[in-house]
Amino acid sequence: MSAGRKAVCLLSGGLDSSTALAWARREGFDCYALSFDYGQRHRVELEAARRIAQVLGAVEHVIVRIDLAQFGGSALTADLPVPKGRSPEEMASQIPVTYVPARNTIFLAVALGWAEVLGAADLVIGVNALDYSGYPDCRPEFIEAFERLANLATKAGVEGRLRLKVHTPLIHLTKAAIVRLAAELGVDFRFTHSCYDPHPDGRPCGACDACLLRRKGFAEAGLVDPLEAAP
Amino acid sequence: MSAGRKAVCLLSGGLDSSTALAWARREGFDCYALSFDYGQRHRVELEAARRIAQVLGAVEHVIVRIDLAQFGGSALTADLPVPKGRSPEEMASQIPVTYVPARNTIFLAVALGWAEVLGAADLVIGVNALDYSGYPDCRPEFIEAFERLANLATKAGVEGRLRLKVHTPLIHLTKAAIVRLAAELGVDFRFTHSCYDPHPDGRPCGACDACLLRRKGFAEAGLVDPLEAAP
Repeated sequence: MSAGRKAVCLLSGGLDSSTALAWARREGFDCYALSFDYGQRHRVELEAARRIAQVLGAVEHVIVRIDLAQFGGSALTADLPVPKGRSPEEMASQIPVTYVPARNTIFLAVALGWAEVLGAADLVIGVNALDYSGYPDCRPEFIEAFERLANLATKAGVEGRLRLKVHTPLIHLTKAAIVRLAAELGVDFRFTHSCYDPHPDGRPCGACDACLLRRKGFAEAGLVDPLEAAP
Repeated sequence: MSAGRKAVCLLSGGLDSSTALAWARREGFDCYALSFDYGQRHRVELEAARRIAQVLGAVEHVIVRIDLAQFGGSALTADLPVPKGRSPEEMASQIPVTYVPARNTIFLAVALGWAEVLGAADLVIGVNALDYSGYPDCRPEFIEAFERLANLATKAGVEGRLRLKVHTPLIHLTKAAIVRLAAELGVDFRFTHSCYDPHPDGRPCGACDACLLRRKGFAEAGLVDPLEAAP
């Protein structure tokens, strides 16, 4: 229904952003995948993003380097330990140290810049408000505020030529529902990377928040995660 | 009145951002100056920013590298000619090709990330809605929308610990008023760089929008611009 329309799709290479990209392809968007090299400790996710962009048929994939580690403040970029073995209640009750300050604000801002150059009116982001309730920038009210800003920030928005829209196809889904949607959309789970603290060879740690949520999602969806099944 | 409060101050090294930084210092803020190496054609502005941060007493100065030139779309990063000799009416009537897509959105987003790490509630940006009416991201409604977003995007905002504020001390000033304010605040004009298309030795071209606005501002303020007076 949106055939031939361009969308800028944020792609970390994880399960959620890969599923969001697959969703955008099914919706008929020409997808411009955007990843960030932001000083994250686990570079394996950029390799995952490259493969996913290719197998899901993105028109183009750009990796923007921005050194957020200069500021410190997050276990994903700084030298703080990644929490392991937390319960779902613990995850939901507080903003974790793996939160990267203003990350989605920065990523969406850069996506907006690319969209403006491309003449695209659509941004796609795989945020999820349910399992990641601890992250302020994954909530619907944040996304709505960004959409409002985007329409005031850009030539196209101000001149009324484009009405910018931020699509969040996963925002109200459980992890199990995301796994099922991904399977339905044909996402190859082998290529998706979720772990915050992978082993040097890229294998997931199995104990960080992201690994635990992924495992729970597959279990509840009644599917086997090929990343866990592999020896 | 804000003694000891930290503020993240966007600093390009131009007249406007330098004046905004000087204003923040006078207000008593501890200033954390933030510049961007975003693939701009004229690197002389980063040198100007370094000197200005130093002479105006910023606590720290960070230059974040982000390659916006990857997307193209602006005469400031791409290989498009910078317009010369435009009248004030021409400047006001259309968004110029020197507009960098989503630039202030991106810069403010990164500033927000640093503010969050610092525990700062204040951002300072030298945007001006009068002389640069062609830039959508220099208008009060854009700044207000960003402020709203910032308070939804951050741990501190969501938890109600900090009320984030974007200060725009120059937003309603004419260029002449900015020159007068800068003089009053003791900004050393020799260190400020405004030109979009400087000569290889760093001297301003004298004909781009930024040079023409600067010249008009000094003339109307009845002051001599040391950059023009120099041989």
